[in-house]
Formats: sequence, structure tokens, C-alpha cells
Amino acid sequence: MSETPDSAVHAVRAYIERHRAAFLDDLAEWLRIPSVSAQPERAGDVRRSADWLAAKLTGTGFATVEVWETAGAPAVFAEWPSDDPDAPTVLVYGHHDVQPAAREDGWHTDPFEPTVVDGRMYARGAADDKGQVFFHTLGVRAHLAATGRTAPAVHLKLLVEGEEESGSPHFRELVEARAGRLAADAVIVSDTGMWSETTPTVCTGMRGVADCEIELYGPDQDVHSGSFGGAVPNPATVAGRIVAALHDADERVAIPGFYDGVTELTDTERALVAELPFDEAAWLRTAKSHGTLGEAGFSTLERVWARPTAEVNGIGGGYQGPGGKTIVPASAHLKLSFRLVAGQDPAKIELAVRDWLAGLVPAGIRYGIVFGAPTRPC
Amino acid sequence: MSETPDSAVHAVRAYIERHRAAFLDDLAEWLRIPSVSAQPERAGDVRRSADWLAAKLTGTGFATVEVWETAGAPAVFAEWPSDDPDAPTVLVYGHHDVQPAAREDGWHTDPFEPTVVDGRMYARGAADDKGQVFFHTLGVRAHLAATGRTAPAVHLKLLVEGEEESGSPHFRELVEARAGRLAADAVIVSDTGMWSETTPTVCTGMRGVADCEIELYGPDQDVHSGSFGGAVPNPATVAGRIVAALHDADERVAIPGFYDGVTELTDTERALVAELPFDEAAWLRTAKSHGTLGEAGFSTLERVWARPTAEVNGIGGGYQGPGGKTIVPASAHLKLSFRLVAGQDPAKIELAVRDWLAGLVPAGIRYGIVFGAPTRPC
Repeated sequence: MSETPDSAVHAVRAYIERHRAAFLDDLAEWLRIPSVSAQPERAGDVRRSADWLAAKLTGTGFATVEVWETAGAPAVFAEWPSDDPDAPTVLVYGHHDVQPAAREDGWHTDPFEPTVVDGRMYARGAADDKGQVFFHTLGVRAHLAATGRTAPAVHLKLLVEGEEESGSPHFRELVEARAGRLAADAVIVSDTGMWSETTPTVCTGMRGVADCEIELYGPDQDVHSGSFGGAVPNPATVAGRIVAALHDADERVAIPGFYDGVTELTDTERALVAELPFDEAAWLRTAKSHGTLGEAGFSTLERVWARPTAEVNGIGGGYQGPGGKTIVPASAHLKLSFRLVAGQDPAKIELAVRDWLAGLVPAGIRYGIVFGAPTRPC
Repeated sequence: MSETPDSAVHAVRAYIERHRAAFLDDLAEWLRIPSVSAQPERAGDVRRSADWLAAKLTGTGFATVEVWETAGAPAVFAEWPSDDPDAPTVLVYGHHDVQPAAREDGWHTDPFEPTVVDGRMYARGAADDKGQVFFHTLGVRAHLAATGRTAPAVHLKLLVEGEEESGSPHFRELVEARAGRLAADAVIVSDTGMWSETTPTVCTGMRGVADCEIELYGPDQDVHSGSFGGAVPNPATVAGRIVAALHDADERVAIPGFYDGVTELTDTERALVAELPFDEAAWLRTAKSHGTLGEAGFSTLERVWARPTAEVNGIGGGYQGPGGKTIVPASAHLKLSFRLVAGQDPAKIELAVRDWLAGLVPAGIRYGIVFGAPTRPC
């Protein structure tokens, strides 16, 4: 290509602008299909949505378009190889099913009759996720037109599932069964948020989660704190000490090995995040919170987007009723969760937490720890 | 007196042995009165018990014997001044009411028909507290007989209430109203435990209690820990940190000023405690516990008898159901209690706890602390 990136962007935008009306007409047609995956009576509409999308992808020029059956709603797969065999393979993920919607839910217009108000199209799925998915049909055509190519610069694959709004119950099975067809160098999730109307957003990573429940057992039953307190270990006290040991004075997670492998933000990424017009007071309102507190050396956005964390989701033990009751409780429990970033391995985090915990529980307190199924960061 | 203490003790014991049978007959008569303060239908029996005791104290030689009315069951007051005007005044406390009892509760004999089995008298109240109270009638007579006195060596007062087993609901009022009559240099509580059958016991102090409830408020509602965790303060985390800050690495209470004024054990007291045939394994079984842990430098008995403590009686916050829930909880609470020893002032402890707490709660967390009515140590 002889064009500079700027002129290429300009050409793409010009193409999109010229084809805007036809694109919106097509999208509106798709949005009229109430592909509500959670409602069994809409199963036919979900299938109709998959077929509609498959036809449009074929029409766009994708070499391969298939409707993939699952035990639930069908997914759509499409593939358009680059003419450069060395080009990377990019897999775009999206979904064609939508949440239930009715006028009674507070919609000002029919949720399945796309309506333009003040230059914006309103319909169930317009922004989650049919709008984003369908834009790839226009985007790839713009890319070809702007570059003069007849095939994309990358090997392009689309996987558009039909059960995302129902918890993707068959997605893992589908992906595992079709792993060969889905092989890719990069995956783009075309179903995330946007910072604001005027700030296009690229989400470059998703945090994972590991979580655990810890049970601490002290006396075989609650015993009188006047008779035994101060002389036997108290599981509620131990629970508190475990919580206090989660972080150091800089609010960094203090579990040895916790940060091993963490992919750090680059200076460029930090600069980009810092450039965002972030209104912390407005953010605090969405957090329903009355102050910020977190890992020293990082901004609030860096803390919630790109840093691993440890959080107490629940703690309990001993007397919970009104007033006081002077006991050493028989047991206490903790529910902890850890947000993980790229480079962290949930299996290693689990081992690190287990080792750390074993070093914190004193003789005389028995305990158990159970981890839930983790979500890997990416 | 020309007698040595040992010979005086011998004379007292000899007197008691000689009058043992008559004493036990009299005690049995009192034990037959079912003075159950918790049962309204026994109110007449409780009054009969008071009258019976008053008559016996008069017969013993007390110069003044009065039945003191309360809004509930009557108490008995008796006074026997020393003939030495400079002698100290000793007030003995006890109670003449008893707990309910019935054969169905597991009694092998009628609880209100004193029965001697293997040289021990079994009846409700025999050891709590009629036996102890009534022994003062024999004890003072033995003292006089053994010393040749006609009045006790100290100004002796008895206060025997009738509502101890019902929580002493009118006792404070009674004591405050009669404070002048009850003035004393020393108070002996004749209603405590005995180490073992073969080890007579003197309890020289009673620990007091201060307790508080702490509420910690974070976000106005539970918020998602994936969106906000690690960036806003978590009240459950703060609760844990407060708990962890209660003690130092030596398990000493780490609240500044907490030990101010504490009456330390003397070397003699420590030696006496250490001489007791203490079976820690057996004690752990009564504690239902699986290990000991407490203030460094003190034995288990010293810890539970003579040292102040801080204990977590209850802790709670966040998600309590099965499995995990990734939230930053809106609130958390703590129930703490402090055992206090002689020299500690509950009002000062409350101020110390309040100051300490204020220094632990970070910006963004609001809190409240409420103290219950304290019990002063003595």
C-alpha cells in the first residue's frame, strides 16, 4: 500500500459513510428478529437470526459461512482467508441473541421495531450485540474498497454465538469441539463497552478471577469468653488476621508470589489511560462509595482495569444477633476473590493462597479452603 | 490472742466438727424450702426462705437482722458489730434463692429433700448458695468459741439476696438505696467456685467486662468487586484489620492505654497459682478447644483469672450464602468484648477503644461504635 495510515482511515470512513443508509436498513431488518435466547418460545427466532446473519455474511463475500448447531441455539461461523498465506489469523467473537424486552420494561418505543431518535437507532440488540457484529460486514467491505484488495489483509474468522445472553451454556463445548476451525493468532471480542460517545474504545485485556471459601474451626462449640477467652485461639480473630494479611501498607496484595508473571502496563498504555477524561467523583457515584483506596502508585482506572486485586466478599463468625454475647465462637468463615491480569495463572495463584494461608493459621485452629472454578485472565 | 494461727485454725475446725450434725440438720430444713425465684408460684417459698434465714441469724447472735423488701423477692440483711470500734467492716454477699429443679431434670433424688450419699449432702441449693451462706452461722460461732470473744473480730455484715438465680433484677436498686447500711471495707462474695474437693478456694478478684458493637459502612450498597474492587475501601477488609490490630505478636492487647492501671499479680500469687494441680489437657476439654493461645509470659490460669483480654465475639459482613459472590460489601460489623482486671476503669477502656478505632478506619468508611453497660472489675 502506498497510502499513509491516515489516508487509509479516511478512505475507510468515506466508504462507510457512503454505505451507511443501506447498512442501517439491513441492520434494522436483523433487529426486528426477536432472537431472545432465554425464551424457549423464541427458539425459532434465534434460528432465523442465525440464518439471516449467515446469508448476509455470504453476501458480504465470506468464503465460508456455516450455521453451527449446539444443544441449544445455533452459532454462525464465517471465514475469509487473506490472499497472503503468511498473514495472521484474527477471530472475531460476537453474539446474535438478545435479552428479553417489552414496552412494559420501560422502552419508549417497540424494542423490536428499530426507531431512530436524534440520530440514534434504538432497538433491542442495536448495541448488544447485533450492531457490533453486523458492522464487521461493512468494515471488511470498506477495508477492501479502501485498499483495493480482494481479500482481507488478515485471515478473518467470525464466531457469532446464539446463547450469550443465557450464560453461553454450550459455548465451551462448541469451542472445544471446533478448536481446529477456530485456531487464530488473535481473538477480538466484539462485545465490550465504550468509554463514551466520543471516545472509541479498545479493550486490550480481560481480568480473570479466582475465588475461595475458607472455614476456620476453633472450639467444638461456642464457649464462654469469660472462662476461656484470652487462653484459646479464636477463629474469628484468626479470620480477621487473615484478612489483614491480604494486603501490605501500600495496599498491594501481600501473598508471596501473587504478582509473579503479571503483565505490567506499558508507559504508552498508562499514558493513554491517563489521557481519558475521567471524572473520579462521577465514578465514585457509580461505585456507591465514599472514597478511593487501592494499590499505591496506580490510578483508579489502572487499579480496576489492569491490576490484580484481592477482595473480601464475605466474612462471618460468632454471634450475629442484637447486643453482645461473650463467647469464643466455634467457627468463622471467609469468602475471598482475586482478580487476575494477563500473565497470572489461576492454578499458581491457588497454590500461593494455600501456602500463605497455611502459614497464618495457628495451632489449635483447624481449617478448610475450597476454590471455585477460576476464570483465566487474558 | 496468745494462740498461733495454726492452733486457732485447729480450734475452729474442732468446734465445727462438734457442731456438724446440728448444722447439717438445720441446713437440710432450709434446703427443703423450694425458694425458686424464677417461678412466680414459689414466691411464698422464697419469702419463707428469707424468714427462715433471718430467724437463724438472730439465733446465731447477729445483733441486727432485717428482711429487706424489694420489688421482687426479699433479701436478708444481718449485722454483728465487733467490740473493737477500729476493726474493719466486712460485708458477706450470698443468695437464698435457687434454680428450678425436678426429678425429670436428671436428679437421682428429690432435689428438695436433702439426701446424704457417700458422705455428701445432695439438694438444690446445697452448694449454690444456701450451704455457703449458712456456713457463716457456724463459722462465726466457731470463731467466737475458738477465740473466747463475744463479738466478731471484724464488724460483720451479711447481705443475702433472693433473686440471684433470676438475674438480680432489683439488686442494684437495693444496694444503692441501702448504701449507708452496707458500707464496708471489704466485700466477700460467698458464691464462687471451688478448685477441687481437696483444694479450698479463695477467689481474690473478679474480672469486669466492657463490650462494644462496631458497624462499618462502605459503599451504599454491595457493588461488583470486578468493577470497583481494589479501588474503594471494603468495610469487611477494615473489620479484619481492626481485629488484627487488637493484639500484638505477643498476644497482648495492642490498644494504647489498655493496660494502664492493671493490678499485676504478685510473685506470691503467681507462685500459688503455679502450685495448683492444673491439668491443661482436661481444661482444654472443658474449653472444647484444640490448643492454647494467649498473652506471652503468662500461664493459662493466669490468662483466664488475672489478665485482661480482648475477644472477638462476632464478626460479619458481605455475602453469607453458599458459593462465591464477587462483591465489595456495603457494611460489616464487629462485636468485641474486653475482660478487665482490678485497676482498670471501664470508662477509660471505652475511651481508649474509641481513640484506637478512630485511627484504624480509613477515609471512605463511615462507622459507629456502641458500648454496652460495663461490669467493673474488682
